Amino acid sequence: MTTLEAVCSKVLERITPGEEERERVLSLAQDIMGRLRALLAEEGVWGEVRLEGSLAKDTWLSGEADVDIFVRFKPDVPRRFLRTRFLELAREATEGLKQVERFAEHPYLECYADGIRVNIVPCYAVRPGEWLSATDRTPYHTEYVKSRLDERLKGEVRLLKKFMKGIGTYGAELRVGGFSGYLCEVLAIHYGGFVEVLRAASRWRRGIVLDPAGHYAGQEREATELFRHHLIVIDPVDPGRNAAASVSLEKMALFVLAAREFLRAPSETFFFPEEPGPTSQEKLRAGIRSRGTSILAIHVRFSDMVPDILWGQLWRTTRALSNMLKNEGFRVLRATAWSDEISNCVLMFELETAHLPPVEKHVGPPVWLEEHVERFLRKNAGKPDLVCGPFIEGDRLYVLKRRRWADAAELLRERLKNGGEDAGVARLLAKHIAEGFTLLLDEEVVRLSEGLKGFEEFLADFLLGRPRWLARRS
Amino acid sequence: MTTLEAVCSKVLERITPGEEERERVLSLAQDIMGRLRALLAEEGVWGEVRLEGSLAKDTWLSGEADVDIFVRFKPDVPRRFLRTRFLELAREATEGLKQVERFAEHPYLECYADGIRVNIVPCYAVRPGEWLSATDRTPYHTEYVKSRLDERLKGEVRLLKKFMKGIGTYGAELRVGGFSGYLCEVLAIHYGGFVEVLRAASRWRRGIVLDPAGHYAGQEREATELFRHHLIVIDPVDPGRNAAASVSLEKMALFVLAAREFLRAPSETFFFPEEPGPTSQEKLRAGIRSRGTSILAIHVRFSDMVPDILWGQLWRTTRALSNMLKNEGFRVLRATAWSDEISNCVLMFELETAHLPPVEKHVGPPVWLEEHVERFLRKNAGKPDLVCGPFIEGDRLYVLKRRRWADAAELLRERLKNGGEDAGVARLLAKHIAEGFTLLLDEEVVRLSEGLKGFEEFLADFLLGRPRWLARRS
Repeated sequence: MTTLEAVCSKVLERITPGEEERERVLSLAQDIMGRLRALLAEEGVWGEVRLEGSLAKDTWLSGEADVDIFVRFKPDVPRRFLRTRFLELAREATEGLKQVERFAEHPYLECYADGIRVNIVPCYAVRPGEWLSATDRTPYHTEYVKSRLDERLKGEVRLLKKFMKGIGTYGAELRVGGFSGYLCEVLAIHYGGFVEVLRAASRWRRGIVLDPAGHYAGQEREATELFRHHLIVIDPVDPGRNAAASVSLEKMALFVLAAREFLRAPSETFFFPEEPGPTSQEKLRAGIRSRGTSILAIHVRFSDMVPDILWGQLWRTTRALSNMLKNEGFRVLRATAWSDEISNCVLMFELETAHLPPVEKHVGPPVWLEEHVERFLRKNAGKPDLVCGPFIEGDRLYVLKRRRWADAAELLRERLKNGGEDAGVARLLAKHIAEGFTLLLDEEVVRLSEGLKGFEEFLADFLLGRPRWLARRS
Repeated sequence: MTTLEAVCSKVLERITPGEEERERVLSLAQDIMGRLRALLAEEGVWGEVRLEGSLAKDTWLSGEADVDIFVRFKPDVPRRFLRTRFLELAREATEGLKQVERFAEHPYLECYADGIRVNIVPCYAVRPGEWLSATDRTPYHTEYVKSRLDERLKGEVRLLKKFMKGIGTYGAELRVGGFSGYLCEVLAIHYGGFVEVLRAASRWRRGIVLDPAGHYAGQEREATELFRHHLIVIDPVDPGRNAAASVSLEKMALFVLAAREFLRAPSETFFFPEEPGPTSQEKLRAGIRSRGTSILAIHVRFSDMVPDILWGQLWRTTRALSNMLKNEGFRVLRATAWSDEISNCVLMFELETAHLPPVEKHVGPPVWLEEHVERFLRKNAGKPDLVCGPFIEGDRLYVLKRRRWADAAELLRERLKNGGEDAGVARLLAKHIAEGFTLLLDEEVVRLSEGLKGFEEFLADFLLGRPRWLARRS
């Protein structure tokens, strides 16, 4: 047995649910489905109660079961019913469990039983392509996958999912921007196994098109034009959908790199990442001190944002503030965000330095544009911030001027003081920033880990900057 | 009389040679020409001795006479004769005057009589287009200009030349990269007068084509393709030559700007620039101290370089070192050079700062390129200069590394220590740099003005950075 086979078989053993766990989870599912069926019958509404998701397809991971129960309604059932009465029935069916209402396109119910998440989701029974809501595809996905998986392939899907989780590319949610469970299944089916997916991914290129069901046979160029994405996987049950639309370029690249690394030196680390190990605040402080860069963190408290909304706001804001800093002359080395997804989030920026030299060069118009030249000359006339010029280089005018913002912390404080929407902060987040935020610089950032659970590990990972599974070359 | 007319007429009075000066210069010319004719007759070589240049065309400026004497030989006279025996005859004809041998395409003699420069230049009598040497065109230029200038236009040419001198755009030599005397004459003839040239230039655009003799009538696009230059003035006596080839984009732009400024507010300052006024070394030092930028000067001693060679080397080197500094992360605000054209030159750089933060971001390959990725990972493995990463952004790998050169002075010293040819220093200059150079930083630069005549004024102008004629807007 090769190392590769040995690693896979050991991992598979750890992640395949045993009989006892299967029975426990399935009986929980049957239980709720039974109650739901009875309640719907009582109500006199026809709805097909079905088990969906990884549990239905037998591709779930031991210890990480999700129970997805779908109720499929006829198209003539009004949406209003789904939004109101249906949710009441779902609550009744899961009475006694911890319940959270969630919103996708329409609301659904999420509950927790014994650490197992149960989702109760309504959808419509329609023919492929005549979708009334985003969840209408799910039963077709389930049928497609079930019809193509044998026992071996189920294990291959499990390996791929666990690998994706381990390296941080699993999940279509905005926080991750990665591969959905369904996409993992489609890839395993398409390539015929876990290692086969990795081998293929090692050679992926930006813009690759996979079309497992052959919807575009011979016309892949059309798919490229239609979807315009770095990774296109035509949904086997819907030629009009890219099943990989959620995968960001970063996560696609990260998966490709990890696939190659794993094939080069197979190890369980990829599936079960090592914990960062205990870091002390003093060690983090020393790390930042000796680093020589400037780290800026903006801590904001928020409320009433579900994760996908929150992360949309965070990513957009990080990008916008990063560009704002760059436009003012700061060299931004990295920018990212952290959140507990409940009430705290932190925007993080690492700069070459937070303190720029006092003078910068301003580019003016080409001399040919008389009106622009006149405006430029007038704008820079006798201003106290003019250091040198105007002078000509090539065919343009230039001046040297005192820099308006030489201190990044000052700049951020000023731009964010009213929420920062003008500076590109996303609207919902701006509302919370306007109510208050804390700006921390360098070693001060470590203080955040006192109040924020999980931030210390995030900060340690941020300082390291390298995927833990990336083997050091000698 | 408008201000414009008043200024022009006052200037014209100052720059038009009076009778006494004319006689003195012309008799000097006739004197030398007579001796040269006699010597050639004695030698038994036929050569037409002619007065050329601004003196022949009567477009010279009072106090700035140049006597250009050309000897036109039949094409069968060997080049060897021009290079050797002819020079001996020229020396004999100017015996008693201070003599310097110069090289253009072939050697010529330059002498000084009473502060007046006399050039004795050989050329061939050939038909237009059948040029044997670069100077063969000159007699045709003289004929062309003489045939088109009346008394009024001669004054217009004088105004244009003096204006060009005043704003620093006069001269085809590499130091200036500006407008030759002949080009000034062609422009004045083409547009019909000094103010007319300025009015037209105010509206010039990059790539403009002027074709006074109509060689390309209706086919200006061909001229654009043929010459590929920002300013194309087809030589009236040679359709294959751009008479404005020597004009750099900077000097073209400077002339356009000055033309507009002068028309907007006519003043003698444009023709007779104010002297910078006395600056003390202490004042210069204080100016640099309070400025907030970093100024670096490299002082080099040289020998055996005529000005056009020297300035070619200086401009190329300034550009190369500027790029080298930029590639290492320094923000170069300005770069220029100074020389006494005898034995001292100074390369000058102004940077935002000469001291960069210790860490920088290095971009690696896109993950798709497996071999490049492997090389990048190996290169950055376990090196003590690795600060963070490798990490992925977009589809590329990056690392944060200790900066190799955080100190610009150190970097320059290291790169120049063997002359700097690897760093792009032009070859002849590199030879001199290898023998030794002095690197000065900020206030130290002022020290150079103690030994170098003219450097103090240059430095004062450099710090100001603005053309003195550029009116401050309110």
